[in-house]
Amino acid sequence: MKHVKIEDLESLALGAAILGSGGGGSPLYDRMITAHMMENHGLVKLISLDELNEDDLVVPVAFMGAPLVSMEKIASGHEFPALLATLEKKMGRKVSALMPGEIGGANAFTPLWVGAMMGLPVLDADTLGRAFPEIQMSSCTVHGVSPCPAFLADSKGNVVTIEAKDSHTVEHIARHVTMSFGSHAALAIYLMDGLTARKSVIPGTITQAIAIGKSIIIAREAKNSPTAAVVQAGKGFQLASGIVTDVDHKVENGFLNGKIIVETSFQEQIEILYQNEFLLAQKNGKALAVTPDIIMLMEQETGVPITSPSLNYGLRVDIIVLPSPDIWKTEEGLKLVGPGYFGFNLDNEVIV
Amino acid sequence: MKHVKIEDLESLALGAAILGSGGGGSPLYDRMITAHMMENHGLVKLISLDELNEDDLVVPVAFMGAPLVSMEKIASGHEFPALLATLEKKMGRKVSALMPGEIGGANAFTPLWVGAMMGLPVLDADTLGRAFPEIQMSSCTVHGVSPCPAFLADSKGNVVTIEAKDSHTVEHIARHVTMSFGSHAALAIYLMDGLTARKSVIPGTITQAIAIGKSIIIAREAKNSPTAAVVQAGKGFQLASGIVTDVDHKVENGFLNGKIIVETSFQEQIEILYQNEFLLAQKNGKALAVTPDIIMLMEQETGVPITSPSLNYGLRVDIIVLPSPDIWKTEEGLKLVGPGYFGFNLDNEVIV
Repeated sequence: MKHVKIEDLESLALGAAILGSGGGGSPLYDRMITAHMMENHGLVKLISLDELNEDDLVVPVAFMGAPLVSMEKIASGHEFPALLATLEKKMGRKVSALMPGEIGGANAFTPLWVGAMMGLPVLDADTLGRAFPEIQMSSCTVHGVSPCPAFLADSKGNVVTIEAKDSHTVEHIARHVTMSFGSHAALAIYLMDGLTARKSVIPGTITQAIAIGKSIIIAREAKNSPTAAVVQAGKGFQLASGIVTDVDHKVENGFLNGKIIVETSFQEQIEILYQNEFLLAQKNGKALAVTPDIIMLMEQETGVPITSPSLNYGLRVDIIVLPSPDIWKTEEGLKLVGPGYFGFNLDNEVIV
Repeated sequence: MKHVKIEDLESLALGAAILGSGGGGSPLYDRMITAHMMENHGLVKLISLDELNEDDLVVPVAFMGAPLVSMEKIASGHEFPALLATLEKKMGRKVSALMPGEIGGANAFTPLWVGAMMGLPVLDADTLGRAFPEIQMSSCTVHGVSPCPAFLADSKGNVVTIEAKDSHTVEHIARHVTMSFGSHAALAIYLMDGLTARKSVIPGTITQAIAIGKSIIIAREAKNSPTAAVVQAGKGFQLASGIVTDVDHKVENGFLNGKIIVETSFQEQIEILYQNEFLLAQKNGKALAVTPDIIMLMEQETGVPITSPSLNYGLRVDIIVLPSPDIWKTEEGLKLVGPGYFGFNLDNEVIV
């Protein structure tokens, strides 16, 4: 057993933002909350899948809502104590471990600060390997783990329990509940025993995110390219470099939907479409990279990961692509998060 | 102990529609469903408050949503079995009796057909004495009964449980959940023991609704005025008669909001404003009748109660006013359902 330490948090914030593919929210505040909770309550035990007992109760947690809202409406701290009290009463047992629902973005930190606050260990794994905008987009769906009962709580400790037939229905109901909470809700979903977790989650992603983030810090110190370091650490490639010349987005139905244009030094225009996460990069209508691969923007000089709400005209960016976890390349995975689900009809034309 | 019989249902439909004050939905389909359930499962026991044991679990039930939608999307029958299974598991005990959350409109029938289907008695009482558009508008709120846990279910048996701090928050969350269900949801709320029910509900309102409805049927048979019969049975008065010359309404946020003009034979124009229920009748900007009193329209010749979704240009109507249950005339009651809550600033100018 090891611990997540306060000095890991900068690396985790950078790496989680990279894996967030532009979505998942900025980890800025959540990193600060986590440091604060660790200073007050001690470090968090990070456990591996091997360390789980078969009948342990493992609880993936996250915040749900529009990233723009979560930057303005930070957690009150009342969400998860109320949620977990309702959850434990409903399940008739204590929670054994928390884990991130998604490693990408701010939600990498959610189980860490809640775990510090409540004295619970955190599993080094998540159920996405990146960030995606909707609840059913989880490795647990692919593995047939029920999303229910699912629990949502707001900043005042109001709690809603959902028992629905399938994960798409849970997404639909939970999205409306989240809107009733002001577009920001604490979520626990896909509760599993330890045996199920071993088969159904994506292992080692907290460690992976810390390693990617650490590569940026080391590159900066050595005056090397942070982009090159991330591409190496994440086993991906750099797609292009350029300047953001157009940003067009709006919050709709609790999502941040939009597109940007990146103009390269070769006067090429690369268009990137997103729904919270960057989903498609294309040039002259031809796809260059597409979901489920992780498309990400990094500020050229500093290597700062650019999340979709922080996009601005004039940013100089590198566009990188990291490979998706294998589970999303399966037939069932592509149904959940492939180009077709997001309305892109690509006819297998991805050229890179 | 007595029973609600199939021959009572026509009277109940008429009386419940009158007490619905234009809202609560048309009882047309619910009356048919109730007759069908009684034919298949037997009559429903109607019990009085005296017949409750102190520790009985009493469950007010209703359908929530826009009346226009409920006329197009009738109950599947899967809502309440799923809801009550979740409720009984959560409460750790069996339901003793159902009761109408509101007597006004279609919801007078909800506990009757669910009670027939599930073999549960129904309490002769409700928590409004009429219909109102929002959840917190309940005698239980005035008496300090917690609305939580509150349960919502959709036509497929998906169930949501709400545990919130106060009834306004439950209304807010439940309204969003209802929208996620397609603007039509089964609801159980303000669960009480028998002792609490005796202090907190409005007794005898099923019997009262049947009596009002029966007065219409008797008047029709005797070729007397149904309006005069209802005014006598309901201890109210007739405000005016006229023709509907303008109808302007739309569904917004799950409600049917609008106003109509009734032109009298004296060429006076009476304006009636509604949010599902008729809330204010005024002439030249002066209030003639206002919530919480029960403002209702009846078709002149036949005595058919006119609900707000069934308003049409050219209808010949009598406008009647029946007195509100006393609880709504208290300071706490007026805060919940008085003119001020609905945005009417009347300066005590009601002139009748």
